[in-house]
Amino acid sequence: MDETSRRGDLDALFRPRSIAVIGASSNPGKIGHEILRNIIEYGYGGEIYPVNPKHDSVLGLKCYPTVLDVPGDVDMGVVAIPAAYVPQVVDQLGAKGAKVAVVISSGFSEVGEVELEERLLRAAGKWGMRVLGPNIFGVAYTPGRLNATFGPRDVLPGSIAFITQSGALGIALMGWTITEGIGLSALVSVGNKSDVDDDDLLGWLSRDPETRVILIYMEGVKEGREFLEAASAASREKPIVVIKAGRSERGVKAASSHTGSLAGSDRVYDAVFRQSGVLRAYSVEQAFDWAMAFASGRVPRGDRTVIVTNGGGAGVLATDAAEMCGLRLIDPPPDLAAEFRRYMPPFGSAKNPVDLTGQASAREFEGAVAAALSHDSVDNVLVLYCETAVTDPEEIAAAVARAAGESDKPVAAMMMGGERSVRAMRLLRSRGVPAYPTPERTAESLCALVRYRELRDRGSAGV
Amino acid sequence: MDETSRRGDLDALFRPRSIAVIGASSNPGKIGHEILRNIIEYGYGGEIYPVNPKHDSVLGLKCYPTVLDVPGDVDMGVVAIPAAYVPQVVDQLGAKGAKVAVVISSGFSEVGEVELEERLLRAAGKWGMRVLGPNIFGVAYTPGRLNATFGPRDVLPGSIAFITQSGALGIALMGWTITEGIGLSALVSVGNKSDVDDDDLLGWLSRDPETRVILIYMEGVKEGREFLEAASAASREKPIVVIKAGRSERGVKAASSHTGSLAGSDRVYDAVFRQSGVLRAYSVEQAFDWAMAFASGRVPRGDRTVIVTNGGGAGVLATDAAEMCGLRLIDPPPDLAAEFRRYMPPFGSAKNPVDLTGQASAREFEGAVAAALSHDSVDNVLVLYCETAVTDPEEIAAAVARAAGESDKPVAAMMMGGERSVRAMRLLRSRGVPAYPTPERTAESLCALVRYRELRDRGSAGV
Repeated sequence: MDETSRRGDLDALFRPRSIAVIGASSNPGKIGHEILRNIIEYGYGGEIYPVNPKHDSVLGLKCYPTVLDVPGDVDMGVVAIPAAYVPQVVDQLGAKGAKVAVVISSGFSEVGEVELEERLLRAAGKWGMRVLGPNIFGVAYTPGRLNATFGPRDVLPGSIAFITQSGALGIALMGWTITEGIGLSALVSVGNKSDVDDDDLLGWLSRDPETRVILIYMEGVKEGREFLEAASAASREKPIVVIKAGRSERGVKAASSHTGSLAGSDRVYDAVFRQSGVLRAYSVEQAFDWAMAFASGRVPRGDRTVIVTNGGGAGVLATDAAEMCGLRLIDPPPDLAAEFRRYMPPFGSAKNPVDLTGQASAREFEGAVAAALSHDSVDNVLVLYCETAVTDPEEIAAAVARAAGESDKPVAAMMMGGERSVRAMRLLRSRGVPAYPTPERTAESLCALVRYRELRDRGSAGV
Repeated sequence: MDETSRRGDLDALFRPRSIAVIGASSNPGKIGHEILRNIIEYGYGGEIYPVNPKHDSVLGLKCYPTVLDVPGDVDMGVVAIPAAYVPQVVDQLGAKGAKVAVVISSGFSEVGEVELEERLLRAAGKWGMRVLGPNIFGVAYTPGRLNATFGPRDVLPGSIAFITQSGALGIALMGWTITEGIGLSALVSVGNKSDVDDDDLLGWLSRDPETRVILIYMEGVKEGREFLEAASAASREKPIVVIKAGRSERGVKAASSHTGSLAGSDRVYDAVFRQSGVLRAYSVEQAFDWAMAFASGRVPRGDRTVIVTNGGGAGVLATDAAEMCGLRLIDPPPDLAAEFRRYMPPFGSAKNPVDLTGQASAREFEGAVAAALSHDSVDNVLVLYCETAVTDPEEIAAAVARAAGESDKPVAAMMMGGERSVRAMRLLRSRGVPAYPTPERTAESLCALVRYRELRDRGSAGV
C-alpha cells in the first residue's frame, strides 16, 4: 500500500460516515453495550448499525445478525466479540467495504496468540482495510462528536490528540481530563499496534487542523526508523510530547511483559526523540501540563518573560522555576514599569516579578497583563493568582482570559487556592489559557513552549 | 530569656486559654472581623474578648475599649490595627499578662519601618511576651480548634504543621489543603519573624504529639547557626520538609525585596539543610506530597517495595519512578507470588509490579495489598488504581485503607480517574493513607519516607 492511500484510509478512523458495532449488546456493563451507548449519546451524526445475531434491536436501534446484513454502507467496524471469531468478522467487514476495523477484543499477541493476530491482519489486508488494535478501548474524535470507546462518555472538546498504548491508564486519564477541564481533539487506544501505529497516527494528526499538539504514551515502537521519520515530519507541523514508559531496568521488563513490545534501551529512545524534535516528558502530569500549554496554539516569539502576581512568595517560586528552565525574566523598561504602577498600590513592585499585592482585583490583573502583552519587550506572560478572602478567583480568571484574548502571545496562569480557584482554573482552560495550581507547574509549562520554538528554529524539530 | 521559658511561652501561641482580638470589627471583609469570626466559628473553646473602642459588641460578644478593660486573663492577643498604634497596644497586652502577641498588622520592617518594629519588640520584651509577626495572616492549631487567621475557616485536622513566610501563598495553600483533603495540625504565618522564628517553632512543634511532620516555606533565615541547631534537633524527632524560595539569582533578589530577609546563597542553604537532616523539596506540590506521606506516621523498615496495580501502564510508570528515586522493587518470593495469584485472573502477573488486571475489584485489591503487607520480604506497598467502568473507586479506596490499617508498614496509593477517583483519593487521605493522582507522585512520596529513614539511620538527621 502506498503512503497516500494509507493516510486516506485513516479518515474513516476519525471521521467515519457510518459505524457498525459488532458485538453490540443490550446488557449494561458489556463492552459492546458501553461503546454503542457512547457512540449514540455523545452525539455521533452518521449511521449506526448494531450487529449481533442474538438481538433484534439494541438501545433503540435495529440490530443485524451479521455486518453483511446491514442495508447501507459501513465505513468503520467496531469489533467487540471473543478473539477467536474476530478474523472471520474482520473478513466480513472487508467484504462489506469498510475502511477500518477498530478491534476492541483482547486475546491476541498480548497473551501469546500471535497466529490469531496474524490471521486477523491477513483478513483485513485482503480487502485493503486498516486495523486499529486489537486489545484497545477504542477511538474518539471530538470534532466529529465521535466517542467509540468504553471509557467515560463526556470527553471535552479541545485540541490535544492523545495516543495511548496502555488501556487502563488511557481510560483513567480520559476520566481525569474531564475532571480537570482538559479538552481533547482525538483519543486513540493503540493496544497491540498490529497495523495502525504511532507513525500512521502522527501522519494523520499532524495534518489535522483540529489538533494542535500530539501527546503519546508509549511503551515501545516496533520500527524505530519509521517512527523517527514520522515524528520528524510531524514535529515540523506541531509539537509532539511523548511519555515513554520503561526507563528503568525493571520498567523495561514490566513494559515488555505488559504489551509484548520490545521496550528497548532507553538511551536509544532518548536519541530518537531528540533527533526527531519530540519533547520528552517524565511524568503523566508533566506531559498533560505541557500539552495544555501547546493546546493554546500560541508560539512564543522568544524567551523574554514577565511574571505578574498578587503574592510575593508565589512570585519568587515561579521566578526560581522559570530561571531554572530557561525563561528570561526581563527588567521592565521604564514605560512598561510606569504602566504596571497604575495597577498597584505604592508598596507594590513594578520589577519582575511584578507584584500587584494581595489587594489586586480583576481590574488590576487585566490592566497589568494587557500592558505586558502589548509591550514589544515581552514575549510571554506568566500570571500568578493566590486566592484571598477579598478577591474573586473567577472574576480574575475572566479578566486574565480577556487580556490574553487581545494578544497572540503565550500566557500561562496559576490559580492557587480552594474550590473557587479550581473553578477559576477550569474557566481559564475552557477559554484556551493554560492554567495550573502551582507556580512551578505554570512556569515549566511555559518553558516547554519556548523550548519547542527553539527546537524548531534550530531545525532539530523535523530534520 | 533562657530556652525553657521561651519554649513554655509558645504554649500560649498554640493552646491559648483566652484570646483578645484587638481591632475586632463588625464589618465583614475587615481583617479584625474575619479573624474573630474564624476563632468563634471554628470552635475555639476558651474565652474570647473582642477589643475595639468603637463597638459595644462584635459578632455577639461583648467588646471592650482596651485590652486593659477585659475582665478575665488574656493569654494571647491578636492585633489587627494600623501599625502606628501597635507598640502601645502590645505594651497594654504585656501589662495585662498576655504571653504572646500575634501581630497581624503590616507596615513594619517589610516596608522599611524598622524602628517601628523595634519599638514593638521593646514593648513586648519589657513584659517577657513573645511576638508572632508582624505582617502575618495568623495562626491555627487544629487539635485546640484554634483558627486565628483571616484565611479560610474550615482547616482540616491532621498532623502536618505548616510554617509559611509568605502570606498570600500561605492563605492560598490553606484553601488548597481543604480542597485537596490534606489535614494540618498547625499553620503558622511567620511574616517578618521579628521574634518567633523557625527555630522557636521547630522546638515546640517537634515536641508536639499532634504533629508528625513539619513543612516550612521559607525565603530566608536570620541566623543560620541557630536554624542549623534547631533543625538538627527537630529532625531527630520527626521529618522536616523545607521549600526554600530564592534558588535562582533573580529569585534571591525577589525574595529579599519581598520579605526584606537576606536570602543568601542557595548553596549555603543547601549545605545547612543537608547537615541538619532536613528534606528539601523543589516545588509546592512535592513538599505537600511528601508531607502527606510523613503524616501517616509510618516509618519504613527498609526500601523493599511491592507495586500492586490494576493497570499495566501505570505499573510501568511507577516502576520507573520508584527505581529512579531509590526504592528497591523485590521479586516476590514463591509463597507471596502464590498468594498474589489468588487475587488475579490467569493472565494477571504476580511479578513486581503485581498486575491484578482491570477486572480487579475491592476484594482483589484488599487481598493482594494485605498479602504484601503481611509478608516479611516487603517493607512498603505502592497501590495503583486506574478507574474503570466496572469497578468502584471508593470501594477500592476503602478496601485499601482496611488492608493498610492492619499493618504499620507504609502504603501509598494512586487513584487515577474522574470525579469518583478524586473522592476515593480524599477518602484514603482522610483515613491516613497518602494518596495521589499519578503514578510518579505516588512513588516519589514513598521514596521520601525511605530517604528520611536512611538519613536518620546514617545519623545525618539530627547531628
